[in-house]
Amino acid sequence: MLGCGVVGTEVVRLLTQQADDLAARVGAPLELVGVAVRNVDAPRDPVVDRALLTADADELVTRADIVVELMGGEEPARNLLLRAIEHGASVVTANKALLAQDGPTLYRAADEAGVDVYYEAAVAGAIPIVRPIRESLTGDKIRRVLGIVNGTTNYVLDRMATDGLELEDAVKEAQGLGYAEADPTADVEGYDAAAKAAILASLAFHTRVHLDDVYREGITSVTASDVAWAARTGHAVKLLAIAEATDDGVSVRVHPALVPLDHPLAGVRGAFNAVFVEAEAAGELMFYGRGAGGAPTASAVLGDVVSAARHRVLGGKSPEESTYADLPLLPHASALTRYQVRLVVDDRPGVLAQVASTFAGQGVSIESVRQVPDGDRADVGTGGSAELLLTTHVAPEAALASTTRAARDLAPVREVTSVLRVEGV
Amino acid sequence: MLGCGVVGTEVVRLLTQQADDLAARVGAPLELVGVAVRNVDAPRDPVVDRALLTADADELVTRADIVVELMGGEEPARNLLLRAIEHGASVVTANKALLAQDGPTLYRAADEAGVDVYYEAAVAGAIPIVRPIRESLTGDKIRRVLGIVNGTTNYVLDRMATDGLELEDAVKEAQGLGYAEADPTADVEGYDAAAKAAILASLAFHTRVHLDDVYREGITSVTASDVAWAARTGHAVKLLAIAEATDDGVSVRVHPALVPLDHPLAGVRGAFNAVFVEAEAAGELMFYGRGAGGAPTASAVLGDVVSAARHRVLGGKSPEESTYADLPLLPHASALTRYQVRLVVDDRPGVLAQVASTFAGQGVSIESVRQVPDGDRADVGTGGSAELLLTTHVAPEAALASTTRAARDLAPVREVTSVLRVEGV
Repeated sequence: MLGCGVVGTEVVRLLTQQADDLAARVGAPLELVGVAVRNVDAPRDPVVDRALLTADADELVTRADIVVELMGGEEPARNLLLRAIEHGASVVTANKALLAQDGPTLYRAADEAGVDVYYEAAVAGAIPIVRPIRESLTGDKIRRVLGIVNGTTNYVLDRMATDGLELEDAVKEAQGLGYAEADPTADVEGYDAAAKAAILASLAFHTRVHLDDVYREGITSVTASDVAWAARTGHAVKLLAIAEATDDGVSVRVHPALVPLDHPLAGVRGAFNAVFVEAEAAGELMFYGRGAGGAPTASAVLGDVVSAARHRVLGGKSPEESTYADLPLLPHASALTRYQVRLVVDDRPGVLAQVASTFAGQGVSIESVRQVPDGDRADVGTGGSAELLLTTHVAPEAALASTTRAARDLAPVREVTSVLRVEGV
Repeated sequence: MLGCGVVGTEVVRLLTQQADDLAARVGAPLELVGVAVRNVDAPRDPVVDRALLTADADELVTRADIVVELMGGEEPARNLLLRAIEHGASVVTANKALLAQDGPTLYRAADEAGVDVYYEAAVAGAIPIVRPIRESLTGDKIRRVLGIVNGTTNYVLDRMATDGLELEDAVKEAQGLGYAEADPTADVEGYDAAAKAAILASLAFHTRVHLDDVYREGITSVTASDVAWAARTGHAVKLLAIAEATDDGVSVRVHPALVPLDHPLAGVRGAFNAVFVEAEAAGELMFYGRGAGGAPTASAVLGDVVSAARHRVLGGKSPEESTYADLPLLPHASALTRYQVRLVVDDRPGVLAQVASTFAGQGVSIESVRQVPDGDRADVGTGGSAELLLTTHVAPEAALASTTRAARDLAPVREVTSVLRVEGV
């Protein structure tokens, strides 16, 4: 491993904590043979074994089957990766700057050496986008890619929209939360997004796109009033990385844009990223997730490491459907979930208490009760009946089922109108 | 190819129309050697070469390198695929029923024969989900998968929410639009979603999950009043396929559920599908797109065909970054887009006409003009000034830039407040 910052530390953590799973997925154990860092004496997370640290990256890359580059920047990353490839190693990199500047040199070298170059983490962090474009959509024709690929600017624009903040205040807030660097230029001026746009365009259109080919405009000219007006006309302001193929050729650009509120990209909030792809046969696709951060980026890096390792171990045999984990399947009765229950009851004092104690008696606690105003049902509110809406805390299916039965048998309960589970909270 | 219905016809179309691209992506041409159908004399789309039709599927599977199964159902699909594997063919299938019933038999057979089984189209149509789970997330630990994997029921629930329709009316409408079968049982009772849930759970947790292991509840008990109440309590009703791993084991279920409106799944409208994945390191991911339909499903099938073919041709060498297309890169000035322009102008008759003709003079036509009510800017509305919001039709960047310059020079134009592009429409 080259470099051991936030992402590198998380990669080491996953390699260590999930060693057994990874070995099962690869078909052989993954051994971390060394970590090249600038300063071997700097303080580190205890998960990093100091005995593996070395300042001699040139030597390290000659004795690994897979080299993971997390240093960033063009040099020495570029030369180290080329040297690793020469020595027959497959390489995994999250280095968008390098790929946008000189990716083809790496790809050619790897091609000649018959090794792999993986870089899922370089485009949108944890979001799988390189594989879907390279493999899943390879039988299709991609027309357009619209990406929210910079979490910092998306967070800033989001805050401008939700609280009417001006850009600089939103940036200060983002800096305070660690979403933005002390020097936010690379993000707010769109340099980060431009590098990702170049990589996405190269992938989507099988065409060499260099960082310098990307038209770039940052968000610094966007005002709170622009964002407010966008909302009034049914739009959200997003910094988009756009790669488009027309009959004449390819256009690649990064700039702020108004996106209709009913477009899936408009709903991408905070520091999340998303890549929206329009393909001829597949139609509209969107890939959503965390585009940055130690653990999310490490997840993408590990996915690449496992692919590279499998490739060396299985010689490219596609991973079979390994069912090695073979976890026990739980009966539905034990599934935990929350419920919303509607009841029609006699409208008199004490009924709610009676219902609540029935639920409690079955070990199901109620989070909230709300009296449904009449009018929703013709018969409710008349004949001294009322409708109650109960939301429970998490409980096992079995308890809920017995609770519902018990509630039905309660004298003052005229009807259990509906029982619906609540998920995704 | 086995079977030639809606999806099969689109697969043939893509194989034909994109033959050159596909050959470039595989490294060798793809030749369709035969199409097994029940009735060779039935009417077909002209894209299907009748000379390739055969009723003898048993014979066909013995003379192909890749067998694409689109017949659906357990038999004869199962035996034909096993026979194809015995004869050394890699197989691509969209058959969720077969995989949910007896996938492991196929995987084992393919494993022993050293060939591949691909089935991206079996889970969520065009949405790449199998590859991301099998490869991109293979270094991570998946905790939970929540999927909207049936477009028919999602459309029905969506219509119940938007227009307050009762279930049966929404189903009738879906049938009229071709989103639902004459017999909608497989969709509304959740059988289709349950099969997909079994496949997703097996993939996510490396555990054998059979269709019978999936708890299933359809949407038939969901009423318009349930959906209305869900909205009032800040939820959308969705039919979810849920696969969860707890410390005790795996729970797999399909049932309608209330999803908070701010959850990404709540925004999945109409016949679209989405799979939401929670992984330990990656965090929240969502994959969105068309889960059914001829062309979208064919796109996923072709992606698998290319992967299988590459594997045979390159012997598993991962596809290099081929830049064979090498399309020309267009100058930014020629990029086409729409604009929203805000101007502060003298508030007197004729100004709007003057501005409009300036735009027209540069070949930029105006789609809409709206007078911004004052109050937004202290100086507007006072001193006889007004603010205009113009939205243009699509125009090249160059024209827009010159238009903006020309507008600035107009006497009655006091200021061009902002110029923002509109994308995603």
